[in-house]
Amino acid sequence: MNPDAPDPADQVFDWLDAHADDRRRAGLARQLRPRAHDSDLLDLAGNDYLGLARDKRVMGAAAAAALRWGTGSTGSRLVTGSTDLHSELEFELARFCGTQAALVFSSGFTANLGAVTALSGKNCSIVTDSHIHASLIDGCRLSRAEIAVTGHCDPAAAARALSTRRTERAVFVTDSVFSVDGDLAPLAELAAACRQHKAALIVDDAHGLGVLGEGGRGAVAAAGLAGAPDVVITATLSKALGAQGGVVLGPRRVIRHLVDNARSFIFDTGLAPASTAAALAALSVVKEEPERPARALEVARTLAERLAAAGLAVSEPTAAVVSVRAPSPDAAVTWASECREAGVWVGCFRPPSVPDSISRLRLTARADLSEREIDRAVDVITRHAPRA
Amino acid sequence: MNPDAPDPADQVFDWLDAHADDRRRAGLARQLRPRAHDSDLLDLAGNDYLGLARDKRVMGAAAAAALRWGTGSTGSRLVTGSTDLHSELEFELARFCGTQAALVFSSGFTANLGAVTALSGKNCSIVTDSHIHASLIDGCRLSRAEIAVTGHCDPAAAARALSTRRTERAVFVTDSVFSVDGDLAPLAELAAACRQHKAALIVDDAHGLGVLGEGGRGAVAAAGLAGAPDVVITATLSKALGAQGGVVLGPRRVIRHLVDNARSFIFDTGLAPASTAAALAALSVVKEEPERPARALEVARTLAERLAAAGLAVSEPTAAVVSVRAPSPDAAVTWASECREAGVWVGCFRPPSVPDSISRLRLTARADLSEREIDRAVDVITRHAPRA
Ligand SMILES: Cc1ncc(COP(=O)(O)O)c(C=O)c1O
Ligand SMILES: Cc1ncc(COP(=O)(O)O)c(C=O)c1O
Repeated sequence: MNPDAPDPADQVFDWLDAHADDRRRAGLARQLRPRAHDSDLLDLAGNDYLGLARDKRVMGAAAAAALRWGTGSTGSRLVTGSTDLHSELEFELARFCGTQAALVFSSGFTANLGAVTALSGKNCSIVTDSHIHASLIDGCRLSRAEIAVTGHCDPAAAARALSTRRTERAVFVTDSVFSVDGDLAPLAELAAACRQHKAALIVDDAHGLGVLGEGGRGAVAAAGLAGAPDVVITATLSKALGAQGGVVLGPRRVIRHLVDNARSFIFDTGLAPASTAAALAALSVVKEEPERPARALEVARTLAERLAAAGLAVSEPTAAVVSVRAPSPDAAVTWASECREAGVWVGCFRPPSVPDSISRLRLTARADLSEREIDRAVDVITRHAPRA
Repeated sequence: MNPDAPDPADQVFDWLDAHADDRRRAGLARQLRPRAHDSDLLDLAGNDYLGLARDKRVMGAAAAAALRWGTGSTGSRLVTGSTDLHSELEFELARFCGTQAALVFSSGFTANLGAVTALSGKNCSIVTDSHIHASLIDGCRLSRAEIAVTGHCDPAAAARALSTRRTERAVFVTDSVFSVDGDLAPLAELAAACRQHKAALIVDDAHGLGVLGEGGRGAVAAAGLAGAPDVVITATLSKALGAQGGVVLGPRRVIRHLVDNARSFIFDTGLAPASTAAALAALSVVKEEPERPARALEVARTLAERLAAAGLAVSEPTAAVVSVRAPSPDAAVTWASECREAGVWVGCFRPPSVPDSISRLRLTARADLSEREIDRAVDVITRHAPRA
């Protein structure tokens, strides 16, 4: 063998370098920037909408659960991975959201995969809003169903697609609050279209639970659809509830079906006890302090109004997400990093992580932001805004 | 409207009841049986192979992290979800397993989805062992690659499938230790076949990490493939490391590519601090007490030998999993539930969760099982064995 010949094993991943170069040239390479536990950045980038991830009661419950139950659930929920904590959380979430039953997954991502695949299948059509979350899209791709993507927030288009389907069964899939712009799906109209065409409705309430509806009961409850026999809610425990994990909520027979059929439930280790207990404690704080969700909304509206008054192109917040348009991907990146240098952490969303070609800053409101912090955020964001 | 007419909304999920009836009739309905924190069952069903999920040091680290960092990571790893804990865990896992780099996911399930999809794609062929884990299968289904499934543990068939592929790029995907029977893939031969045919090798070492190889460095290290430029390892933090989460380990350029492309990484909340810290603490125990992995293997061999000596059809354990054949699904269910009533908790695997049509008990060895506990387990399992 020629010692100078390149080892073929070294070349197997050469194609990745070309990809990486393309991304770098397009200004789209991503970088992990780990934070320290005592970072003093003002956080307008995370999804801890109610400020519960660092609430003493929630942290205490997580710590106590790790010491009492151990650090892992040790198996699939169907073997050793279900504890009394999981059952209690499922009971409380279902009661809070007004559904018959609930099933906790290890993430919102796997909850969406499980709900979409197990409730559709080869003899089913899935119709979706065009802006749904990546995990719902992956659920659709895994489902073997016939897929039709309709316009954004367009119940008439949803009805048309449902009415022209070729299968008996159908499901409409949407986010409640869309993660990038924070806009709200027309849930009542979508539910009416589904009913007219005998379809089920799956709503991902990841950004609505804990924020919208009476006392944070979520966007589905706010639309008067809680407990409906044809509506299934998915959500995450990692945003307003400050923990980790996901949940599917709905009629009892839907939940039973998921236990038997959702691959991302069956073949996945159960949620860790500490995260389960954290979500449970967070839920109890939300119930005790029903003003928190309203405060998160108020902070979002204040942020949006003041940024708009300063001349920025701001979305109308319907939940805790505020989106501010940037003129280009590069301008968005520069803007966000200048804010960060000035102590204010904002999200920066660019293609392909946006549903259109528009780059933007994504700001999240938190119920525990003070007026001074809001002042500071508005000041820094407007001061570093790119000239139009 | 006729008040007696059935509401069409009520009927949308009627099809689930028929499905449920079918499963019940076939004896395949599954039931969640949550455990109490002070359950006194002897646990031979979980995957806590080293007994670290309840180790005081590991539990203490998780509790401290929840109090120090909060209960959630609050965002995607690319936004606010990366902490110094995540970086430290990635650094330590890569060093332990002998790879250039590592990337932590929220579960082994999402790690597998991310690795398989991001490293294949439309212009790639994926060749797999026929017994791979459900999460790898779902990764293949999501990948848009051309898929070929070959025989179980058959490197010659792997080489044939790789040599007749129609795409330039190819990936072979396998478990190291297969989860149901605990048998070991011929990794060195598979790697040789991959090299001959310029394919990458992805190995899911979920049941090998912490159990096989020198000091628990995993099945890939044991096969002499650690740090190979064409090999990618996926693993879970939820089995031998007693926590929750997943990891992909491999060449630096592979990890960088996943950061930019793996949808189940980008669009998922980062692993909770408590679980991250637990995995880190567990890894440090494994390094300090390198006899633990060997002890888990010894317990597995002892269990298998003694059950075989009692006349049962037992797999030859190559890791910490021992599989015992049952004559039928019903017999397996009865056997497992009689063991449980007698205080010994064993796994019961039936179609469709087995790669063949054979139902079995699945026993897991734990490094911290005492001789008395092994005696008790063997006694109970043999006493309740179905007559052949
Ligand atoms: C709308 C939506 N659905 C689902 C998810 C996934 O939830 P998780 O991060 O808990 O996996 C997210 C965010 O991560 C989301 O924004
Ligand atoms: C072989 C294998 N791969 C992947 C997984 C998924 O890992 P996790 O449970 O951490 O999602 C499991 C078990 O759950 C497994 O047995």
